[in-house]
This record gives sequence, C-alpha cells and structure tokens, in this order.
Amino acid sequence: MEFRIEKDTMGEVKVPADKLWGAQTERSRNNFKIGAAASMPKEIIYGFAYLKKAAAYTNCELGVLPIEKRDYIAQVCDEILTGQHDDQFPLVIWQTGSGTQSNMNVNEVIANRAHQLAGKVVGEGEKTLQPNDDVNKSQSSNDTFPTGMHIAAYKMIVETTIPGVTQLRNTLKKKSEEFKQVVKIGRTHLMDATPLTLGQEFSGYVSQLDHGLRALNNTLDHLSELALGGTAVGTGINTPKGYAKRVAEYIANFTEHPFKSADNKFEALAAHDAFVETHGALKQLAVSLNKIANDIRMMASGPRSGIGEILIPENEPGSSIMPGKVNPTQCEAITMVCAQVMGNDVAITVGGTQGHYELNVFKPMMAANLLQSARLIGDACVSFDEHCAQGIEPNHRRIKELVDGSLMLVTALNTKIGYYKAAEIANTAHKNGTTLREEAVNLGYVTAEEFDQWVKPEDMVGSLK
Amino acid sequence: MEFRIEKDTMGEVKVPADKLWGAQTERSRNNFKIGAAASMPKEIIYGFAYLKKAAAYTNCELGVLPIEKRDYIAQVCDEILTGQHDDQFPLVIWQTGSGTQSNMNVNEVIANRAHQLAGKVVGEGEKTLQPNDDVNKSQSSNDTFPTGMHIAAYKMIVETTIPGVTQLRNTLKKKSEEFKQVVKIGRTHLMDATPLTLGQEFSGYVSQLDHGLRALNNTLDHLSELALGGTAVGTGINTPKGYAKRVAEYIANFTEHPFKSADNKFEALAAHDAFVETHGALKQLAVSLNKIANDIRMMASGPRSGIGEILIPENEPGSSIMPGKVNPTQCEAITMVCAQVMGNDVAITVGGTQGHYELNVFKPMMAANLLQSARLIGDACVSFDEHCAQGIEPNHRRIKELVDGSLMLVTALNTKIGYYKAAEIANTAHKNGTTLREEAVNLGYVTAEEFDQWVKPEDMVGSLK
Amino acid sequence: MEFRIEKDTMGEVKVPADKLWGAQTERSRNNFKIGAAASMPKEIIYGFAYLKKAAAYTNCELGVLPIEKRDYIAQVCDEILTGQHDDQFPLVIWQTGSGTQSNMNVNEVIANRAHQLAGKVVGEGEKTLQPNDDVNKSQSSNDTFPTGMHIAAYKMIVETTIPGVTQLRNTLKKKSEEFKQVVKIGRTHLMDATPLTLGQEFSGYVSQLDHGLRALNNTLDHLSELALGGTAVGTGINTPKGYAKRVAEYIANFTEHPFKSADNKFEALAAHDAFVETHGALKQLAVSLNKIANDIRMMASGPRSGIGEILIPENEPGSSIMPGKVNPTQCEAITMVCAQVMGNDVAITVGGTQGHYELNVFKPMMAANLLQSARLIGDACVSFDEHCAQGIEPNHRRIKELVDGSLMLVTALNTKIGYYKAAEIANTAHKNGTTLREEAVNLGYVTAEEFDQWVKPEDMVGSLK
Amino acid sequence: MEFRIEKDTMGEVKVPADKLWGAQTERSRNNFKIGAAASMPKEIIYGFAYLKKAAAYTNCELGVLPIEKRDYIAQVCDEILTGQHDDQFPLVIWQTGSGTQSNMNVNEVIANRAHQLAGKVVGEGEKTLQPNDDVNKSQSSNDTFPTGMHIAAYKMIVETTIPGVTQLRNTLKKKSEEFKQVVKIGRTHLMDATPLTLGQEFSGYVSQLDHGLRALNNTLDHLSELALGGTAVGTGINTPKGYAKRVAEYIANFTEHPFKSADNKFEALAAHDAFVETHGALKQLAVSLNKIANDIRMMASGPRSGIGEILIPENEPGSSIMPGKVNPTQCEAITMVCAQVMGNDVAITVGGTQGHYELNVFKPMMAANLLQSARLIGDACVSFDEHCAQGIEPNHRRIKELVDGSLMLVTALNTKIGYYKAAEIANTAHKNGTTLREEAVNLGYVTAEEFDQWVKPEDMVGSLK
Repeated sequence: MEFRIEKDTMGEVKVPADKLWGAQTERSRNNFKIGAAASMPKEIIYGFAYLKKAAAYTNCELGVLPIEKRDYIAQVCDEILTGQHDDQFPLVIWQTGSGTQSNMNVNEVIANRAHQLAGKVVGEGEKTLQPNDDVNKSQSSNDTFPTGMHIAAYKMIVETTIPGVTQLRNTLKKKSEEFKQVVKIGRTHLMDATPLTLGQEFSGYVSQLDHGLRALNNTLDHLSELALGGTAVGTGINTPKGYAKRVAEYIANFTEHPFKSADNKFEALAAHDAFVETHGALKQLAVSLNKIANDIRMMASGPRSGIGEILIPENEPGSSIMPGKVNPTQCEAITMVCAQVMGNDVAITVGGTQGHYELNVFKPMMAANLLQSARLIGDACVSFDEHCAQGIEPNHRRIKELVDGSLMLVTALNTKIGYYKAAEIANTAHKNGTTLREEAVNLGYVTAEEFDQWVKPEDMVGSLK
Repeated sequence: MEFRIEKDTMGEVKVPADKLWGAQTERSRNNFKIGAAASMPKEIIYGFAYLKKAAAYTNCELGVLPIEKRDYIAQVCDEILTGQHDDQFPLVIWQTGSGTQSNMNVNEVIANRAHQLAGKVVGEGEKTLQPNDDVNKSQSSNDTFPTGMHIAAYKMIVETTIPGVTQLRNTLKKKSEEFKQVVKIGRTHLMDATPLTLGQEFSGYVSQLDHGLRALNNTLDHLSELALGGTAVGTGINTPKGYAKRVAEYIANFTEHPFKSADNKFEALAAHDAFVETHGALKQLAVSLNKIANDIRMMASGPRSGIGEILIPENEPGSSIMPGKVNPTQCEAITMVCAQVMGNDVAITVGGTQGHYELNVFKPMMAANLLQSARLIGDACVSFDEHCAQGIEPNHRRIKELVDGSLMLVTALNTKIGYYKAAEIANTAHKNGTTLREEAVNLGYVTAEEFDQWVKPEDMVGSLK
Repeated sequence: MEFRIEKDTMGEVKVPADKLWGAQTERSRNNFKIGAAASMPKEIIYGFAYLKKAAAYTNCELGVLPIEKRDYIAQVCDEILTGQHDDQFPLVIWQTGSGTQSNMNVNEVIANRAHQLAGKVVGEGEKTLQPNDDVNKSQSSNDTFPTGMHIAAYKMIVETTIPGVTQLRNTLKKKSEEFKQVVKIGRTHLMDATPLTLGQEFSGYVSQLDHGLRALNNTLDHLSELALGGTAVGTGINTPKGYAKRVAEYIANFTEHPFKSADNKFEALAAHDAFVETHGALKQLAVSLNKIANDIRMMASGPRSGIGEILIPENEPGSSIMPGKVNPTQCEAITMVCAQVMGNDVAITVGGTQGHYELNVFKPMMAANLLQSARLIGDACVSFDEHCAQGIEPNHRRIKELVDGSLMLVTALNTKIGYYKAAEIANTAHKNGTTLREEAVNLGYVTAEEFDQWVKPEDMVGSLK
Repeated sequence: MEFRIEKDTMGEVKVPADKLWGAQTERSRNNFKIGAAASMPKEIIYGFAYLKKAAAYTNCELGVLPIEKRDYIAQVCDEILTGQHDDQFPLVIWQTGSGTQSNMNVNEVIANRAHQLAGKVVGEGEKTLQPNDDVNKSQSSNDTFPTGMHIAAYKMIVETTIPGVTQLRNTLKKKSEEFKQVVKIGRTHLMDATPLTLGQEFSGYVSQLDHGLRALNNTLDHLSELALGGTAVGTGINTPKGYAKRVAEYIANFTEHPFKSADNKFEALAAHDAFVETHGALKQLAVSLNKIANDIRMMASGPRSGIGEILIPENEPGSSIMPGKVNPTQCEAITMVCAQVMGNDVAITVGGTQGHYELNVFKPMMAANLLQSARLIGDACVSFDEHCAQGIEPNHRRIKELVDGSLMLVTALNTKIGYYKAAEIANTAHKNGTTLREEAVNLGYVTAEEFDQWVKPEDMVGSLK
C-alpha cells in the first residue's frame, strides 16, 4: 500500500495515496476503531456538501472568498452529492462528539479534490484550497455539524418518513371506506364487546396516523433552524456581517427546503432539543404503528385456530419446518422497527441531556439514531403498505359467525330493561352455553319479537356525528 | 368495624359502614392489593366529577334523565371537587387497565351520597340514583376514564406545568439581560474556547425553554379531544343523538378549558397517542432543564476548587459532616425530576403501544405517569426559580481572571494570520506556560500593538443579528 | 399553629411545636415543595433507624460514644421501626440528591425524641444528644444515605419481591404438572403451528421465572455491600479504627440479613451500580411477567369470539355498560406494573450515569424507583397468583376443537414424504377448506391408514429429555 | 443482469445468476426493503454456520443423514466461517421476526454451494442437498435462529466485550496504584469536600468495572443455553432421540465455548430473557463507563479555565476554528457509546416483552442490538484505554494548589471542637476570603500549633482497611 504525507497543526501523518482525505481524517480513522467501519451516515456528509457550498457562496458574496475558490468548493460539493466520493468518508459515529473530524474530512476532501480539478496532483505543489482557511471559512465544527445534522434529518423526514407514513395512511383510509358496512364483533380487554364495523376499526388507525403526522409536522419548524453562523461558541466569531442569515438562505435555495438561521445560536450548538422534539414525534408514530400492526396480525391469526377475521397477503413460505405455514411477516418487521425507534428515543434523550456549557458533544450519535428511525419508519410503512395493507380483505364468513354468537349484544337492552337484568341474561346464556335470545325470553324480560327488534348488530354500530 | 351489604351483578359484598363506596369498589380494593393504598391520582377523580356532571346535564337536556337526578349528580360532583370526599376513593392505579372500578367508585359514591342528600340512610330504602343506569347513563368506563385522564392532564399542564416553566423562563430571561455585558470564557468539550457573555449563555437557556413551551403547547390540541360519547367501543352505543358534542361543551364550560369531542372515538379509546405526544413534550422540557441545571451547578462549583463563575443562594447547611459546606441542591432536585420524567416517558411509551383492538388497557398507569411528570416539572421549576435562579449572581473577579488567561483568544487572529500560525502561537504558550501576547510577538507573527488591537475578548462576543 | 425555635449553623428556624424534627428538616420542607408531601419512602427511614443504632453501638464499642447516649439512640431507633414516628419524616424525594436533609431529619428526630425520653421538653435545656456530633457521629449523609438505600432495597427484594414471584412460580409449576396431558395447538407468529401440551406451555413460564429469580439472586451480593464507614468522600475521615467492618456486622445482626462493608467505599458513594444491577434483574422479571400475563389473557380471550382455551376466575363485573362482561383484570394490573418497571429502569439508569467525582446525587430518586419496582412486582405477583393463576383451568372442549382442525399437523409427514409434498397437502386443504387427511389421500402421498398412524397430535408433543 | 430460476413451495423466483442464494432469500430481499442493505449481522450468519455443521454431524451420528451430505454441509460451513461467502447473505434485520428467511438463506447457500463442490452447476441437475430436508434436517427457524443468536452473542461478549473492559480495568488499576500518594481535593455535589488521593478516586473506577464484569459473567450461564432441538414449538418434533443434547455438545466443541442444551425449550423459543439479562449487564457497564469517562474529562478540563487536575493525551487538533485546542475526544466517543447502549436496552426490553404463545418474533432486532452494544463497549474500552487512559498523568502543581486552598479541611476539626464551631471557622474564612488557619486562630478555637497538627490533608485520606 502506498502513502503520501499530509500535515496538520500536530505534524505529519501518512495517508493512503489513493485517498482524498488528509491528516485529521487519518488520525481519527486510527484513533477511533469502534464498531463497523465508516458508520457516519452518508446523509450527514451530503448535508455538509450543501452547507460548504452555501458557505462558499456567502463568503464570496460578502467579499471574503475569491470567486475561483467558491467555484472549486461548489464543484466538489456537487460531486459529493452525486455519491461519487462516498468512499472518501471513512470515519465512524463514535469519534469526537462534536463531529470535528467529519467536518475536517469534508474540508480535506474538498481541498484535495479541488487540487485535482485544478489539474494538480494531491500532495504536490501549493494547495489550491486550504482546508481550514478556505473551505472552513466562517465556520466551525460546532456550527457545521449541527447544520449538517439538521439538513440530513429534515430531508429524511420530509422525503422518506412523511411520504411513507402517508402512503400507508392513505391505504388504511381507503380500506376504512371499503369496510364500512362490515359489522364485526368489538373487543375490549381482548374480550367480546359490542359490535362495530371493520371500517370503523380502520378509521381509528387512520386517525392515529393523522395525529402522528400532524405532530411530526409540528416539529419541523424547530428542525429547520440552522446553527451555521454561530461558529465556535455561538457568538459568530470570524464571520462577516450578515453571514448567518445569508448562508441559511443559500442552503434553503440549494436544498429546496425552508431552512432558516436559528434565532439563538447558543442553543443551537449547546443543545439538540430540536432532535429530541422531532424524535419524540417519530416515537409517537412508532407507538401508533405498533398498535396497528399488532391488531392486524391478531385479526389475521389462524388460519383455523385463531381469530381469522381478515386475510392478509401470503408473501413467502412461513416456516422451514412446518409446510404450508404463512405468517404476518410485514407486521413483524414493522413492530421490530417500532421497538428500535423506542430504544433510539432513549439514546437521543440521554444524549440531549448532556450538553455542557457551549456545546453538546453527543452529536454524531444523536444524528445517527434519528436518521435511522426516520428511514426505518418511512421504509417500513412502504413495505407494510405494499406487501400487507393493500391486500387486506375481510373474511366475511368468519366475521359473521363471531358477531352472531356474541353475548355482548345484550348491551342494546340496557336502555330497555336496565343494566342488572341485561347482565342476568348474559350470565345465564354464558353459563348454559345458550343464546341471548333464548335466555332473554326464558327469563321473561323481553318477548322474542322485542328481542329481534332491539338487538340488531347493524343498529349497534352507531354514527357519532 | 361495622359493615353494610352492597350488591352488584355478581352478588353481595360487605362494605365498611361509614364509607360511601359500593360493591365494585370494595371488590377492587380486595382484589388489587398492589403498592401503596389509594394511589389513583385525585386529579383523575376530579376529572370524573367534571364529566359526570356534564353527562348529567347533557342527558337531562336530551331528555333521558330527570332534572332532579341531574341536580343530585351535579351537587355531589361539586362536593367532590372541593376535596371533601377525597377519602372515598380508595383504589389503586394497579387495577383493571380500563379503570372500570374507578369509574364505578365514582358512580357508587355519587349514588350513595345523593341518597344522603335526599335525607336517607345509605344502604336503606329504594336507591335515589342507580350507579349504572343513572350516574353512568350514556357512558362506559371505556370513554369516561380516558375523558377523566384528558381533563386531569390538560388542567395539570395548563395550570401547573406551563406556569412553572414560564416563571423560570422569565427569570432566566431577566438574568440574560442583566448579564449581557459580562464577558466570560466559553467552553466547548468542557475545554476553554472563545469568549461569550454570561447573558448570551443564559439566552440559550431561555431559547430552550421557549422551544419547549412551544412544543408543549403544540400537543394541547390533541389532548383537548375527549372520548366521551364513544361508550363501549367507540360507536356511541346507548347514547342519545347529539350527546358527544354537547357533553364536551359542558365540560369545556365547567372546566373553563377548550375541550372538544374527539373526531374519532375509536382512536380515543383504543390508543392514547395524545398522552404519548404530550409526554414527549414534557420529556423535551426535562432534557432542557437538565442541561440548564447542570450548567448552573458546574458554573457555581467551588467555592475554591471548582469553576466558581457564578454564585447561587445558600439555602441550607450542605453536609452533616463537612462544616460550612453549601451545595447546589435545587439543581439536584430538578435533575432528579428530569431523570424521573425520562423514565416515565418509557412507561407511557410502552403502555401506548399495547392497545388491543378497541381498547388500550394501560390507562391508569399512563395517566399517573403523565400527571406525575407534569406536576414535578411545574413544581420543580418554581422551586428552582425561587430558591436558585432568582439569586444567581456573577462572580466578576473570577470570571475576569479566567477569560484573561485563556489561550483560545488566539482565534481572533485566524482571519489575520491564518489558522496554522495562530495554532503555533497557542501551542507555544501552552507548552511554555506563557501568554498568547508574549508568544505572538516572540514568533514574529504580530506586533504587540496589533495583538492588543485584534485580541479583545469584548470584541469577540459578536452579535448575530 | 404554635412554633418553637430550632437552630443550625445557618441560624434560627421556626418549627411546628408538636413536631420532633429540627431546623434542617424544616428548611428542606420549605425549600422543596415539589410533588406530593412526604414522598421519601418510609423504608429508607427504617433503613436509617437500623444504621443509626448500629453506628451508636459501634461508636460505643470503639470508645467514642458513652453508653447512655448509645442507649438513647437505640431506643428511638427501635421506636421508629415500630412505625410510631412515621409522621415525623415530612420530606420529599425531590430534595438534595445526597439525601442530606433526610439524614438530618433522622438525626434531629432521634435527638429531640431522646430529650423527651430523658424527661425533658423539646427545645428546652441542654440537649441530651447533639444531632451532628452524637447521632451522626462517624457518619456523613454521603455514606448513611446509600447505606439506608441498600438496607431498604435488600429487605424489600428479599421480603417482598422474591416471595411474591416465588409464590406465582410455584402455582405455575403446579399447573404445568396438572396440564401435562392437555394436548393443544401451538402458535408461532400468532399462527397455528404444531401441537404441544398446555403443561409444556406453562413450563416455559416457570423456566422464565426460575431464570429471573436466579438473576435477581445474583445481584444480592453487590446490594449487600454497605457504604457506611466511608463518611464524606469514601476515605472514612472522622471514623475510629475498625469502624466500617464492625458497623456492618451490627447492621447484619439487627436486620438478620447478610450485609457487609463495601470493599471500595469510593464506588459506594460515587456510583450506584448495585442499584442499576438489581433493577436490571427486576426489569428482566417484568419482561417475563409481561409475556406470561399477555399469553394468559390471549388464551382466556372470548368467551365466544376469542381463543378461549383456558378459563380464568371471574372476580368482578367487567364493564359499567356491557352487562355480564368479565375481563382479565389481573393480567392488566400486572402488565401495567411491568411497563412501570421498564420506565423506572430508565430513570435509574439515567441517575446511575450521573455520579460526579466523589458523589452520585440522584440517590433519593434511584432509591424510590427501585423500591417501587420491587414492591410492585412482589405485590402484583401475589395478587395475580391468588386472583388469577390459581384458578386457571383448561377449556378442554375448545382445546380439542382447535387442535383437531389444525393444518400444521402435516409437519409430522416431513420425515415420511418430505417438506415439499407435505406443504402441498397443507396448501390444498387450506385452499379447499378440507382436512389434511382428505387431501393427503387424494393427492396419493399417503394412505388413510398411514395418515392415521403418522399424524397423531399426542405423538407430536415429544419429550425433550 | 442474468438470472436463474429457483423454486420454493410457493413457486418460481428469478435469482441473480451469480448468487448462491435461492428462492426464499430472493423473496425476502424483495419484500423487505427497509433500511440499509444486508443489515443482518454477519456474526449471526457465522453462528448459523456453527450450528448447521453441528446439526449435520448429529444427524449423521444418529443415523438420519448420510456421511457425504454431512461432509458437504460441514465443508460449506467452514467456508462461511472464513468470511468468503459474506456477500451471499443479503437480508436485512427488518424481516420476519423469527429470522426464517435468514435461516433459509443459510440453507440455500449451503445447498447450492455444495452443488458446486460436487462439481455441478447451480440450478442444473438433481440437487446435491435439499435446503429443507437435508440442511435444515431436525431443525426449524424457531430453534436455529435463537441458537445462532446465542452463539453470536456469547462469542462477542467473551471475545470482544470482556477483554476490552478488562484491558481498560487493568490500566485503571495500574493508575490507581501509581497515584496512591497524590493527595487531592475531594468533590461532592461538584463542591469542594475533604481530600482523598487520586489513586483512591481511580480505585472506585476499578471497583465499578470489577462489579460490572462480575455481573456480566453472571449472565453467561443463561446465554450458553441453546434452543436447538426444540424445532417448531419447543417439543422437538422431527428430531431423532438424543439430538438436542448431542448437537449442543458439537457446538461447544466447534466453538470452544461451554454451550449446552437449554433445559426448557419452550422458554428458549418464546422468550429471550437471556438477552434481556445479558444486555442488562452491558447497560450496567455503560453506566459505569459513563461515570468514569465523565469524571476524567471534568478533571482534565481547561487547560486554563477548568479543573485541570489531570493531563490526558493530545491525539488530534480539537477544533477547525480554534487553533491549538485539544479535546477529550475518547471520553466523548465512549459516552456516546454508553448512550447508545442505554437506548438499545430499551429496544431489547420492548422486544423481550412481546413474545406470543410459542414464539418471540423480535429476534433479529434483539440480536442486532445486543451485538452492537457488546461490540461497541469492547471496542470503545480498547480505544479509550490506548488513546486516553494509559496516558493519564496528574498535574501535580494544580492538584496541590487546589487542595491547599480548600475550606473543607476544616472537617478534621469536628472531632476536636465539634461540628458547630468548625462550621463557624469555615463560614468566616469563606466570607472573608481568608484561610482556615487564620480564622481558626482568630476565633480562638484552636492555636496555630494545634491547627497545623490536626489539619493535614495527607492525614485525612484515611485507610479503610
């Protein structure tokens, strides 16, 4: 393996000759051999590409960076965003908690790649761009990393999570309407209760996701606030006048998302409550999805010894030993995702509490967890939608069988004969293994005609509006 | 001890003669001896008092309850709200997960107390009110308990949490303005960094709490949705037409809070995502408060071997063995509260995931945790404000001493001589235990005059706007 | 209300005349109005009573406390342990994180009560005992509070948690043996699988609890280590030689539990990993109990539209609106407890991480959470055992019906005709709504005689040993 | 791209021609596009390789598999363990919760690779091995996946976690001894307290890790229990007599770890309490490591405006904007790891609670989280040890400066003049900014000679043994 020599303020470092990164990246690669290689999410790197380009444009506009340097920086950032340099970012999440070396990794790659674009050989001749003085101009790791986090998270939420959840929500809404005439037994405490329609049941799922999406949208404003311009401690030292506002405008422009400069940069560096807030909404969605997926697998259970009220698609052989078995595998994948999101919420919460003075140094960990949750929820909703929800059908025969035998239809008699007599009818039928109608008449509380008129499942599913 | 006989649909039960509760309360008391006695929060009971009164008014207005019964119910509810019957609600959180027996406890107490108000002896003569058929008319535990939860939680948030946090926020805002000229050393990674003002530091805390309060307010809409009118499974069986909307209006009227009927009652019974959402915001506030309180105790640490930049009130002797010791006890109380809230969040999350079909049966646990968090945050903020935050003062001598010696003032030279030379100055001063000025001049990178002109802490604290 | 004047090193404080506490208790009562009144668990106070008595005996034995003072202290401690002074400990959990004022509360009550026992009036004449110099001799809050925590926790685990879990475990073991001939359908992924016996299913629950009890027992050694003797920072300053070991022996003697002096007092003050460890085992039990209780309520679901394989006791009317409804309320209470324990685990974990230098100041919060979890698990197991588990019976008719119709009996044919042909039989029967036997013969893969010989549920439940 | 046709019981599937996997793997790859590609940990695949080989040997020994088939299976398993087939396992964690398709992935790859080894072309001619009937013989996903999980987890704990933690523990132990004469100020509540030695402080860290390692070792027995032999539901259907015990012996032999057959296979499939238990101990270690790393960065803070009592290695430039800055980056990496482990604990806990009947279907998620935690802790301890702990040195000048000025040395006077007079001395010195000695003499409580004799920091650090 061949190496070249790179330098930083601590001295010389040997770097693999074919890599664009520099001394600080290499130090970090050697100092933090923790977990899988290169675990820093690439979305963060892309977030950096947006912000480095925006900083270059702003610096140029405000007169502190020549236009040629701006253009070199912008050109490399655009290349990074195509994914062509993905292998130039070898660092892990488990590095310094400010992500300083990932910022330097981007600075170094941009500087060295610009050198190539200028027709020179990396490591030879005068540098086309200085990583710190040019690429990092008017910036600090302390404001760039959180800016990169916010860009990455916002994009993931808006481009993956919300569309995924919405797609599933829309299918459930459609099913809710399709099933609005399907009267089935209700269950509370897992026990037989009064009837409702399958459409009503699904409308509850839709309502959960609607509330969850609203809650998630409520968090986007905080997430759209960018730290950039705060530099080292939030005061904006070494930035030109007007920089913070302008650089946020460039980022909004380049990403086509409504980013803005954070009103208070001290919070933006020292706390990541925006991440805590947004992930709280992701966790709420996980709670909702867990409920929905669990209900669906219980209703689909069987085929002969379970509930069996709905049919779900059969996507793969379910067992390596039991022939012919089919399982609710999409429900399982999504509930595992939900458990992961609940765990990630605690990791983010713990990280969020531990800012000290002017900086929170749990940034990469918090970012990685939020990005994972946001992607998993989005992807899992699409998978669940396409391979399960869209194919859900009522098992009409089974549904009717169960509703007809239920003792809780007796509830319709409360307003006619009172709770106590109604209870006596139900208890007697339960004890004797008979029907409500039989015992209602036997006990002399209603006539058969009254019973048939008053106890109709289809009249018990109400309409709340 | 004397007893009287009470009955329910399962038969007779002996109840202490001097108590107003009935058979079902007594069964639950005996069947659930788990944890401390009577742990069901009284705020839930008061929530029930509001809703039982509202239901009585609505039932009467819609023609299904006579006016005398309405008035008895309303009168007892008003009594309950004064606290005079607090000892009539002996049940625990760890009962049925629908809170059915707490609903019945309220029904029974109202019925028996009404009997007394009618001039009769409890347990004798024809009942003035039937617990199920009158007091519980047009209701189910499944819609009353979540309604009681929402009323209790909303009131606690609006009457205790938000005022408490706001009080502390306002003090921190005031301090932020008072301290806006106090230039101090910044710290990132706990290490010396460029300066900022103490006022800027406090402005970050204010911004955190402002965002937290906004997030909490965002959750109130979901929390204001009431399940009442959904009855057994969300269909509204056994309610008169127009009931759900009207009963919510009465509750809004009686409580003077903007409650409304939930659009989707199936969600309102089967899921408690509103609680997950609201508690998510409480957790966010806990994260912020933890950061703030931890910073304050670190800055106040000493008095001689710590940071010592601020002075906090000395409220009590700090040690039973070390004479003269004073500790940041309010910081400790509030950070313990924060840890509790983080734990409660997981309990609520776990409970929230476990709704099955038409009902979530983790209601009392979820309610108790949210009420505890909401009260603790509110109370702790008031305590922290009154016994700590209001008395915070800068230790000017110490602040000046620390800022003057800092090596990170060198950052101001980046834009003059570049990052690398600036680093050389700082490293040399660090190694030699000298000052930046000395080494800057020695190394020949700046003159003494330039140094004095360029490196001024008070010019480094910027203004971001 | 009448008051007397008490003094501490900060000056005079007015204390209610009829109370035994002193100045520091009163200061804390006024400075920490957070949450419910007097929330410090009384088990902690009793832990203090044991250790104060043990310290007095040790101090006397080592020549630093006169015998009369020892006897006064011991006498009041014995009184405290009877519960007669419970109302003298008005402080809350949310105070200083070292519990200093609760230590002083005990010191003050002992000193003032001793004064009464000496025939004098509290607040008058020369003090019989000095709270700091006599009652707190050779102690600090920093070693007494964790000692009190360990005593309280150990006792709760050994006297409430383990007996409660063991009682339930024994019932499940008994049921496992009773049900060992009851062949039922197995379910994986909630879907029909090959058969097993109900006894085997219950044996899994027993095995879970056995492992959980073993895990809990593994933590007791760490929990038995006492901090006492470390005093202020772990060095044992102001203790006589031999004190730490001897005082632990007295505590072991008085409590009849095998307490010992912690080998390392620095850990014992600065970290509460023993609490993290023990609560980890409580959380494991919560996980197990949740699984067990959830299975039981699913198997008991119905009575007509659920699984209905087992019958559980009917303890109370289940619904205020649905007459005759009975619910698995004990399952609900215990699963709520499990969720709480999972939440408490996070609170304890967060508190455990936050020790700083020589002291962890999340002590009261950590203690309160562990004591709650330990008590709730113990109590809930007893309640679940007595009101549910003991009464579980198989619903033989339903069990047989479900096992007979199952398609997964086809698995028995794998070793005869291979997985692929077996799958074809099951899929055909599923599609046609027919029996396995019918299709197995139709497809020509086995004869009817072979089928009857090879596919016997009772032969498929194996024996693993 | 070229494809070949593979079949399973559901029909034909197109598979990339150059891949060894079959129909079921390909179905899963298409049905679960959730999160990153191929996220199933390779350690699980290697766990499968061990168990497939062991099953083949056992099946052969018990007469149900020919020796040639055994040898083909064993040969491919050995190849898998070299890592040469890593790209043949493309599935994700977020699939069916039983891991069925990962089991089939292994079965398919073994069968197809064996076909190659037999000199044939994949997809052509009679299959050398049947994935289900041969490779999966006497197995089910339901017992193989948990067996693979346990093998992977046990190996990771024993080969990575424990050695990593032990390496750090040994360094801290060495430092503890080196620093045993270094008297420094103690701190409780972050405030100055009585002195101790730096060695004593570090001994607390050693004690924490010793307890944590003991706790982790306590969990290994449960983790060493293997589900294999339980097959579909725990009954061992379709296994030859003696299989379960023998296959565990083979696994123990091949892995050189003391694996054994689980006594109760019903638990082993339906619950993963062993994972909950083991991860509980990992979380305890995370709690300890967080405390240690946080202390170290606080003690190393500065260099001029912090505590500065110790010096840690300077590994990389700490800031992209502040020249010469060095940060405690290893402390940050490891505390981020700790936060992740705390989050993972909740994910595992939630997954652990959700077993239903005969199967827990959160297996891949639980496995992935535990493996991540175990690896991160091990790796982070090594990194922290090599790049931080080994290089820690006391800053003697600073340590002496701080201890000499401390007011808490007054504690030594308690036993001479009582707590109240000692407090008066400390308070007066604090108020006047003077020394204890000065005020002690001024107040007339001790002579200068007595003070010098009684108040010696080096005499206050005690010895507890």
